[in-house]
Formats: sequence, structure tokens, C-alpha cells
Amino acid sequence: MKIELRQAADMLSAADHILILMHHFPDGDTVGSAYALGRALQQHGKHVQMGCSHAIPARYGYITETVQPETFEPSLIVAVDVADAPLLGETYKDIVPDLVIDHHGSNTLYGRRTYVDSDAAANCEIIYRLIHLLNLPIDRQIAAALYTGISTDTGCFKFTNTTPETHRIAAELMAMEIDFGTINRIMFDTKTKSRVLLERLALDHMQFFCGDRCAMITVTTQMCRQTGATSDDLEGITALPRQIEGVVIGITIRQREPELFKISVRTHEPVSASEFCAAFGGGGHIRAAGCEIRGSLERVTELLASRAAEYLEK
Amino acid sequence: MKIELRQAADMLSAADHILILMHHFPDGDTVGSAYALGRALQQHGKHVQMGCSHAIPARYGYITETVQPETFEPSLIVAVDVADAPLLGETYKDIVPDLVIDHHGSNTLYGRRTYVDSDAAANCEIIYRLIHLLNLPIDRQIAAALYTGISTDTGCFKFTNTTPETHRIAAELMAMEIDFGTINRIMFDTKTKSRVLLERLALDHMQFFCGDRCAMITVTTQMCRQTGATSDDLEGITALPRQIEGVVIGITIRQREPELFKISVRTHEPVSASEFCAAFGGGGHIRAAGCEIRGSLERVTELLASRAAEYLEK
Repeated sequence: MKIELRQAADMLSAADHILILMHHFPDGDTVGSAYALGRALQQHGKHVQMGCSHAIPARYGYITETVQPETFEPSLIVAVDVADAPLLGETYKDIVPDLVIDHHGSNTLYGRRTYVDSDAAANCEIIYRLIHLLNLPIDRQIAAALYTGISTDTGCFKFTNTTPETHRIAAELMAMEIDFGTINRIMFDTKTKSRVLLERLALDHMQFFCGDRCAMITVTTQMCRQTGATSDDLEGITALPRQIEGVVIGITIRQREPELFKISVRTHEPVSASEFCAAFGGGGHIRAAGCEIRGSLERVTELLASRAAEYLEK
Repeated sequence: MKIELRQAADMLSAADHILILMHHFPDGDTVGSAYALGRALQQHGKHVQMGCSHAIPARYGYITETVQPETFEPSLIVAVDVADAPLLGETYKDIVPDLVIDHHGSNTLYGRRTYVDSDAAANCEIIYRLIHLLNLPIDRQIAAALYTGISTDTGCFKFTNTTPETHRIAAELMAMEIDFGTINRIMFDTKTKSRVLLERLALDHMQFFCGDRCAMITVTTQMCRQTGATSDDLEGITALPRQIEGVVIGITIRQREPELFKISVRTHEPVSASEFCAAFGGGGHIRAAGCEIRGSLERVTELLASRAAEYLEK
């Protein structure tokens, strides 16, 4: 059942022992949402417990340290920034949350009560409003957690989901003198050595097709082994080929098994990534889509290059 | 002579033929400042001329096309975002502007009258206030120009010069429905093919020292020739080594002549880049400094690595 934010606030006010759930593979927005809300409630005298199926990456340590760990049987279970039950991950996927607070238009309404605002660039924008509705103070730690969610979900205010409201909230949070410079450095300007070594190998194997309008990089299991790169290190690597001036189809080939490859396609106008991938049984969004192809790397590369040629000749 | 912004507005109101000067090697902030102010004045019936010692890069085309070119003998010369006369560049360096509007604390007061606000993250923040003081409307084109200056000078709101006021102004400008997504993509997520090829070569030659606390890349003249990279393509490449997790000294070696190298040093706490470079007769800021060293590349690399070891052992 969909509810208003005021009703969500009332549910939180009425409860004393609250479990807050994040999505698996936790990111800045789910972590920021959970800990900002958790800290606001805990400082108000509520008992709060945090739940996530995966360990929260160390770079969010300045957020996770702001809530005191507690153990108890919860009377209210809240999920934040979680669009669907399976995204709660292994440990929590069978729980039906009493309350879901989310900003994904695709939310499946899997909770008992759900507040969704798909205009919010980050779920942390909703949590900001919720804490105000609850009449709870926003201290520096809460401000830093909320800022982190907003900053990471908008690519530091770069992406088109950013709204004037996003900037207005950021202005309010910054007035709390948070160390946003360090936060942004950690989130955007820090790479592991493995990531840098992997990028180097991937760039070494970059290929250009169709008069440089299509660029392709390949990440093999051998390359990951060689550099010690984990799936965490691969995040965002699919953005590389499309960044190049003039490229309208950027393709990233990732080896899953010796003869199975996961393909990520990122495009610029007028190329439809989902149309491109549909030819291989895949799909997605207009500028970001994917598919899987079986075969040797040579064969897969060939298939993709000829699909690009076919598409760009149209 | 230092003046208030109100007086700057009065000077502009009193003049009819205005030449607006930018700094050489023009960036988003000087271009955005000049054209936003120029368009606001021109739409108000003033005659406006733009001056820059260098050609304005094509990526700012959506800004430069918004002012109609005019030729005349100016009655008022204004410089925007220009900290010192030599920065006006070859064509304009001997002119003494009647009015300078700037956000650099280091402004040398080389103009007849100067308004400086060093708290402004971007000069475009000042121009935004100035246009309001002049009671002129901000249309979509002016908003896009101002947003560009603010976004580029703050690394898209990432750097510590960003203030709550920066975000508040961005919110106002975005309300004009500017295409900020495309602006940010052009400014931050577009690389030339030469740049990508050069990065690949530079990463290929990346070396680590002192247990990975020092990282070093080298850009030789041969590498620039091979990839077709120009000095424009090298912008920001010095950020690469310091981005790596754990690295506190990031060094970029650029070959100037066969046996002359320009060294850029970027550090994290607690290393002082200027102290590091002082040993080689260079200097700069605490986190960004530089020097020049003569010798073979092998010798220069050795000298820098042993300086790093010496520094990190302290």
C-alpha cells in the first residue's frame, strides 16, 4: 500500500525498536539513508539496528561509526532505497518490511507500506525531508551521511537526475560544515591500484571501429587475476569507451566463462543501446543496455563490430 | 582602487559601448562570465564586444553563439576572472581595464577599479549577483553560461571552494531548464582519442615506489608525437598518480627537451608538495607543486624516487 511521507513519519514515531535494512551491494545512498535515519532516531532515544546482506565497504566508515550497534527483536522493519525484495539480498530477502522508503519509480510495493518519490535524485533527499517531518535535529554526522547519498547518486550533481531541490538540500547540509571535500575525494577521486592496473590492461586492448565511432574494451578473467581486480574494482569501467570524443557506441566485453561474455553497451544520441543489444537477446535502457554472447572472444568481438557497422550505416 | 559591486553595476549602467576581456587560455569561468554579462547587457540595448587573446575552444560554442559580434571603439573596458594584466595575454596585456571583476584573492589590482570577492567559488557567482543588481533578466542562455563557469571552477561542486551559496545559485540557474546534463558531459566526461591513447601509454610506464606510497608516470615527447596529444590533451593528467588508494606522493614527469623534464608533484596529507619540490629548486602549494630537473630520464626518475624514500622515511 502506498502511503504519504507524513504517515511514514508517524509509523517511525510510534515504534521503539526499529530495524533498518539496506540493499545488498550497498552504495552511498542506501548506507547514507539508513545511518542518517538510524542516528536521528537513536539520538532521540529509539533503539535502532542496521541490516545489510553484504559488509558495508570501508570507505563509508565515517558514516557507519555514527550509530551505536544494538541487538533486539524489532517491532518495526524499515527498508531504505530498496526497489524490490530480492535486492535485500541473501540474509533479508524473505522478510516483508513494514515500511519501505524509496526513490525508484520501479519499486514493486513488496513492503506492507511504501512511500516512493521517483522525482528525488537520491533516497537521501527523502530521508532529509523525513527527519524534518519527525522534528529531529540534523547534526554534522547526519548531514555528512545524507550528503554522501545525494552526491554519489547524482555523480556529484553531474547527472540529469539532479534537480534544483537537490542543490538546495546540499546547500543546507553544507551549512553544517561537513567535510564534503574529503567525502567527494573518497567517492570520486580514489582508485585502487588493482583498478588502475586493470584500466591500463583494458585500454591496452581498446579497439576502434567504424571510423572511431565505436570503441570497445575487453576485461578477461585472466586480466582480473593478473591485476587482483575484484568486481568492486570493475564498477564504472563501462563508462570508459563512451567517454571518447566522437564515440557514439561504447562497448565493454567482460569474460564470465571461457566462452561466455557479458556485454555492456553505452551509447550517445542517436544510437539506442537497448535496440543494439536486442539483436543478441539483451535489453535495457536507451543509453545503457546489456546482453550475453557465447563464443570465442574473437568471434564475439567480430559479431559486435559488425552489429555496430550495420547500425551506424543505417 | 577597490570598489563595491553596486559601483561596478553603476559603471556598466553608465556605459554604452563595452569591451569585455577574458584571460588567455580561456576556461569555462572566464568565458561564462564574459558571455553571460555580455548577453545581459546586449539584450538591454548596450553595444558589446568580446576580447580574448586565444581562440575560445569549440566546446564552449553553445555559450559564444549567444552574443552578436559587434565592432566599435569602446567607452568602457571590463576584465572578468583575470587576476593580473599578463593573464590578458598577448593581444590585451598592455590595456588597463576600467573595471575588473574577479574572484581571485591574488588579484593585483591592475585595473582602474576592481571588485574582488575571493569567497566566490567561481567568478560566475559574482556575475550572477551583478546581473541581479543591474535588474536585468537571466534567460536560459545566460543561465547556461553562468552554470558552466560555476560547474567547471568547482569540479562540478566537488572541490572545497564550493559553498552553500554555490549550490543555491546552481538551483536558481537549473530552474531555467538549462541542459546541465549535456554541459557536464562535455566538460567532465569527454576525452579526445589522443588523450585516451596517451593515458594508456602513461599508465603503461607507471612505476610504484616506497611500498606503493609513491606513484610516478612519465610523458615523453615521443609519446605525445605517437598519440597526437597536444598540451590541451595533457590537462589534468597530473591528477592520475595521486588518485590511487594509498598513494601520498603522485609524480608526473613531462619531457620538455631530451634532457630537461618538468616535474609535477601532487600529494596527500601529511606530505608537503612544495617542500618536496624545494629540494630541486621548485615550489608551489602544499598539495600541488612543481620543479624542473635536467638529466637523463633514468637519472631523473632515480632522483625523484630517492627523494620520495627520504621524505617518507622521516
